[in-house]
This record gives sequence, C-alpha cells and structure tokens, in this order.
Amino acid sequence: MIQCVHHINFIVRDLEAAVVSWERILGRGVDARHRLDERGVDTARFDLGGTWVVLVQPTGPGAPADYLAANGEGFFLLALGADSLDAEAERLGPSLLQGDTRTGLDGWRVRDLEVGQTFGAQLQLAEE
Amino acid sequence: MIQCVHHINFIVRDLEAAVVSWERILGRGVDARHRLDERGVDTARFDLGGTWVVLVQPTGPGAPADYLAANGEGFFLLALGADSLDAEAERLGPSLLQGDTRTGLDGWRVRDLEVGQTFGAQLQLAEE
Repeated sequence: MIQCVHHINFIVRDLEAAVVSWERILGRGVDARHRLDERGVDTARFDLGGTWVVLVQPTGPGAPADYLAANGEGFFLLALGADSLDAEAERLGPSLLQGDTRTGLDGWRVRDLEVGQTFGAQLQLAEE
Repeated sequence: MIQCVHHINFIVRDLEAAVVSWERILGRGVDARHRLDERGVDTARFDLGGTWVVLVQPTGPGAPADYLAANGEGFFLLALGADSLDAEAERLGPSLLQGDTRTGLDGWRVRDLEVGQTFGAQLQLAEE
C-alpha cells in the first residue's frame, strides 16, 4: 500500500543559503545532511511529522542538474511511501514506471513514475 | 510550531482525468472534493498519512489560473501545518509573508510566504 508522502524534494542552487532560509521558516535546525555522489547531489533535510522535505543542490551531472538547468530552482519531486516498492511497481505496471529501482538517501529504495502519466507532477515510489 | 506538511497542491487542467490517474497510482479512491469559487478552483484530495495531496483545477480567474497559464500543470504549493498560523506569521515577520490570511478548503486558514524568500518553492502556512 501507499501510506504516506515519504519525501518532497526541492532543487536549490546554493544548499547553505537555502538551509539558512528554511531553518528560519521552520524555526528549527536541519535534521540530516547527506551527499549522494552517484546522483550528483548534496542534500539537507527536515523531518516534518514523518514527511521529509529535502533540499537538493546539484553538484555534478545527473537528472537533478538537468532539472535545474531546464526549470530553475523549485519543486523537483514527490515520493510516495510504500510498504513494498516491488509490490506497488507490479500493481502499477510498466507503463506507469520509468527506469529501474535505485538507491536514494540513507539506502531508501526509489523508483520514478512516468511523468507523462502524472499531469506534470514528478512522482516516485519510495521504501525505507 | 510548524508540525507537518499539511497539504501539497498540484494544478491540473482536467480534474476528472487527473483523479482517475491518481486513484490508479494510489490504489484507492479520492477522499474529498471541494469547489472553492472565491479562489476560482475545483479540487479533489487524498489523505496520505495526514498530508493532503490536493488536485486543483482552475475554473475561473485567480492565482491558480494564472499559475497554470504561466507554468502549465504540476506542483503549485506546499503548505506547512502550524498549530497557530498567527503566531508563526508573527515569528516570521512581514518580509517573509505575502498578502493576508485567507480561507482555504474546509475552512483552513492559509497565508502565503513570499516566494522570493523560498528558493522557487511556493510555500504557505496552514491551520485547521
């Protein structure tokens, strides 16, 4: 089952500046930082009642850098928390999926949905 | 305090078609529908573990229609759930706020943050 909004990613140009701004808005410090070189990003995140808000700064080639170049800063993707990513992927079928399962922050398993099927919203499945 | 991600809004052109697609992705039916004429929108929403995913179709003039015309379908805004919107607004101060408090779906009180301060992410405070 899809149970929650697992994380929401925002692309930023300058992670340190964005962290300062989000800490001011949220009134508290960042909960975790994580560099993910295989994805070409540096990240910082806040746990908001079980949903992670993740700030993502591209640091090398990859989909996040491509997104920043094409769209500028802002919303990047929403990940739906699944108890079993594989079961949800099988339920959805290949026409709704894009690419293979990959490893996200902290070993999360993630798989993108086909954006052409989601009305402009980049969606993803995620399993811890 | 800001406690959670209260809701995330996605702008769509055709609410009925988007509901069919999201119901297929989530594997269940929509939880609520709400027309908000003063905002010029028709909406449908899903409760994902305490966070609402809201699909918003512009039906008349207003910020959602302007957003759709400028950006097309996709992510519109993220609302941070506050136990007291007024206390959070006072803490943030006027330079981080935009416009006045208004009434959202189901009587939610909402207030936009100044987008120039949020690295491209349209943010909002929300209180039930």
